Amino acid sequence: MTLSEAREELKRLEMEEFAYGYAMGSLHYDGETGAPRDTYIPRGKALGILSGVGYQLATGERSERLLDALSEHMDELTSAERRTVELRQKDLRELKSIPMDEYVAYRELLNESHIVWTGAKERDDFASFEPVLQKIIDANRRFAALAAPDTDPYDYCLDKYEEGLTMERCDRFFGVLRDKLVPLIEKVKRAEAPDTSLLGVNFPLDRQEKLSYKLMDLLGLDRSRCRLGTTEHPFTLDLSKYDVRITTHYYENAFASSMFSVVHEGGHALYELHTVDEYAYTGLGGGVSMAVHESQSRFFENIIARSRPFCEHIWPTLVELCPELGKYSAKDFYRAVNTSKPSLIRIEADELTYSLHIMVRYELERAFMHGELEARDLPSAWKELYRKYLGVEVPDDRSGVLQDSHWSGGQIGYFPSYALGSAYGAQIVAKMKETVDVDECVAAGDLSPVCAWLEERIWRHGKLYKPTELIENAMGAPFDAKFYTDYLEAKMAAVYRF
Amino acid sequence: MTLSEAREELKRLEMEEFAYGYAMGSLHYDGETGAPRDTYIPRGKALGILSGVGYQLATGERSERLLDALSEHMDELTSAERRTVELRQKDLRELKSIPMDEYVAYRELLNESHIVWTGAKERDDFASFEPVLQKIIDANRRFAALAAPDTDPYDYCLDKYEEGLTMERCDRFFGVLRDKLVPLIEKVKRAEAPDTSLLGVNFPLDRQEKLSYKLMDLLGLDRSRCRLGTTEHPFTLDLSKYDVRITTHYYENAFASSMFSVVHEGGHALYELHTVDEYAYTGLGGGVSMAVHESQSRFFENIIARSRPFCEHIWPTLVELCPELGKYSAKDFYRAVNTSKPSLIRIEADELTYSLHIMVRYELERAFMHGELEARDLPSAWKELYRKYLGVEVPDDRSGVLQDSHWSGGQIGYFPSYALGSAYGAQIVAKMKETVDVDECVAAGDLSPVCAWLEERIWRHGKLYKPTELIENAMGAPFDAKFYTDYLEAKMAAVYRF
Repeated sequence: MTLSEAREELKRLEMEEFAYGYAMGSLHYDGETGAPRDTYIPRGKALGILSGVGYQLATGERSERLLDALSEHMDELTSAERRTVELRQKDLRELKSIPMDEYVAYRELLNESHIVWTGAKERDDFASFEPVLQKIIDANRRFAALAAPDTDPYDYCLDKYEEGLTMERCDRFFGVLRDKLVPLIEKVKRAEAPDTSLLGVNFPLDRQEKLSYKLMDLLGLDRSRCRLGTTEHPFTLDLSKYDVRITTHYYENAFASSMFSVVHEGGHALYELHTVDEYAYTGLGGGVSMAVHESQSRFFENIIARSRPFCEHIWPTLVELCPELGKYSAKDFYRAVNTSKPSLIRIEADELTYSLHIMVRYELERAFMHGELEARDLPSAWKELYRKYLGVEVPDDRSGVLQDSHWSGGQIGYFPSYALGSAYGAQIVAKMKETVDVDECVAAGDLSPVCAWLEERIWRHGKLYKPTELIENAMGAPFDAKFYTDYLEAKMAAVYRF
Repeated sequence: MTLSEAREELKRLEMEEFAYGYAMGSLHYDGETGAPRDTYIPRGKALGILSGVGYQLATGERSERLLDALSEHMDELTSAERRTVELRQKDLRELKSIPMDEYVAYRELLNESHIVWTGAKERDDFASFEPVLQKIIDANRRFAALAAPDTDPYDYCLDKYEEGLTMERCDRFFGVLRDKLVPLIEKVKRAEAPDTSLLGVNFPLDRQEKLSYKLMDLLGLDRSRCRLGTTEHPFTLDLSKYDVRITTHYYENAFASSMFSVVHEGGHALYELHTVDEYAYTGLGGGVSMAVHESQSRFFENIIARSRPFCEHIWPTLVELCPELGKYSAKDFYRAVNTSKPSLIRIEADELTYSLHIMVRYELERAFMHGELEARDLPSAWKELYRKYLGVEVPDDRSGVLQDSHWSGGQIGYFPSYALGSAYGAQIVAKMKETVDVDECVAAGDLSPVCAWLEERIWRHGKLYKPTELIENAMGAPFDAKFYTDYLEAKMAAVYRF
């Protein structure tokens, strides 16, 4: 195969892989957005077949021959092509070590587990979910052993969501957080808590929806390529850089929930929508890792939207949509949405205690990937760690171990990315402020300089660089968790008037 | 290949075809139910790839070898297997005559044309749709010439939606309708028109939605396998017998529009949901033809839901949901929803003038498939035929040639099925009444005996029989359009008190 033949073949193969990925993503989206319950059966059969073809495309002889051909011309390849070869080789090696029938069965299992988990959470019935969760854990243990026999099985999981992330890095990072944040949390506990009653006003759902679109426009999200839907749990699905779906959930008496989830998912969407066009339909399209992704989503959610200037800017809109808020001020709103209090639900947690929720999940995942816990042990282990880290009593599994969809979706190793991404965000904004007057932009409701900065340094590059490389280039320095703890200290001082 | 190997291979092939059909159907559904405008671009690329694979599955060597193997054992095959072979052979022959790149390009064209047509209709701008429509017409002419060189090109189109249907049969059928219905329409014109003001009451959208679910329950639709959505144009999509989607459109001041569309699409859904389980995931699953399909949908919409007993039964629900209706009676409702008046929009047309709308489309399709009209000629030809057949002036293309989605979806030859299906329905109910007291069931709100009758004779058989065979078996006699004209005469006499 000549180099130009290999390039053509790569293009064809990547386009086919795009088509299967797009179709499977659409089926998942459909399953999450109102497809009737029992339709998971035909959907599972279709997903089984399609994922089998996806497996063959990634691991088959055609892919091997192509990689061999490209490898022979390594010196002539562009950096994008070299990175593509590197990513495909890793994928091929890992995937091929898992027998195809097991891979397909696992995909079908995940389709089913979503339904089982949804029902279990609704009925607060962990027992009905336990056997499926055990199968998911078993499959992940087995895949780790097959795909990376010389690697710690949990390191293998972490690497899937953040290339190069290890327990060692996590432990160090969480250690810094613990040292700095535990005393800060104590300090906050002793301070006078802001009044949060404004968060419970009745905010009609159709008005909340209007607010969502206002927020999407503020973020500069192109609505001809980005759809907002409603689901039980907010998420972002990147079907293509030309087709991104975000979802939210509206609660009449908790408007901040949908408000900040729209901004959070909007941050994910911005990243996906702004990869350079030439990576669309290729293996380099889309965000590079989950920590980098969360660095964008949690940046917009917390550093931007929970900032004083943003709260001031959006306040008139909030009062217009919900006149009952008129008796409060923008400052009340700012303090209320930054109030810190150890709580039960991760996605509703404040910035300060958020990482503790992550640490609980990190410890549990590590334990079950190491065979120290089984599915049946998780509810009580969960409760114990919430008592230990957050000092709260978990009253039931619905607000405990069943709250998140990640494990039912097979996403073991994802959680640390949330905390790491949050910390990346704090260091990114420090760097950004060297050249962009972020506060002034936010106050003026013009986020375009902020977005342009991120697009140039992060979004446009897709998967071209390794996550650490990308993020360190953007930050202009190695990662340092101190930016994050400093940021949280400053914010708490402002909110609690230390 | 032994017979049992061939049977295994058929099962595998059909399951793969199911998966691709399911995925492509889901993508279409997504495209119709709110996917942002510009996402048609990635969706088109994915559909192009998937339809290419679908083409290869149907026409490739693997399929040919399988059909050869099965044909060698024809005597040992079950009737279902023989029918499967027959249908696959026809498909293979016709599809293979069309080059794959043209087939894929056509699928991509249809994906794009939906967007173009939607925009053209919104802006009443036929000119923007004309080039795409011309391409669709050209492709259909070419495919007809390639796939069935010895058949009239429009007969080829008709046969795709109703196996065995020809212009000759259509002409005969429409001739009977014209002879009987034109004088009846004249008679109705001279009679005193019922008061239809009740159809314009303000019926809040959320109440209309409640009504939809009530209607679905009345029809016995299993909501764990059948989803109701909202779209610009109501439709039914059968992804599987375990996953059927129906849609409606709500208008605040025209509740009957969504009410009867839910029953219409519900009739399609009942048919799809009740094929026997053993045909699921096979080529015999789902309804056999569009005329048989419309015989079910229009049966429930008109013969059942526009009947006097149904209007009486549903009336208290309507008044409860919309108290403004309290000043009218069930009889007023019955007369209003059966009022006949030549009008512009097919899907809003009354039963009596409905077939005239179909005849317009039939004549136009026949003309352009015969090369006697081009896309640019259609707006004026449409207006002329509406003047001739319905005596109405078409004020713009939005309520003229752009009203239906069929041509933009490549569905040329579908329209006659609506009229033919309506007529089948009238003959079916006559037969059904020999053993089921239809009026009493409807009055009691218990449609299960009606559904059981249809399931036994029609629904369960999927594509096992040819449409004519199936329908004549159900009716116990050859098709006779007189049942339909008699039915319409009796109904008009009741409504207009001749």
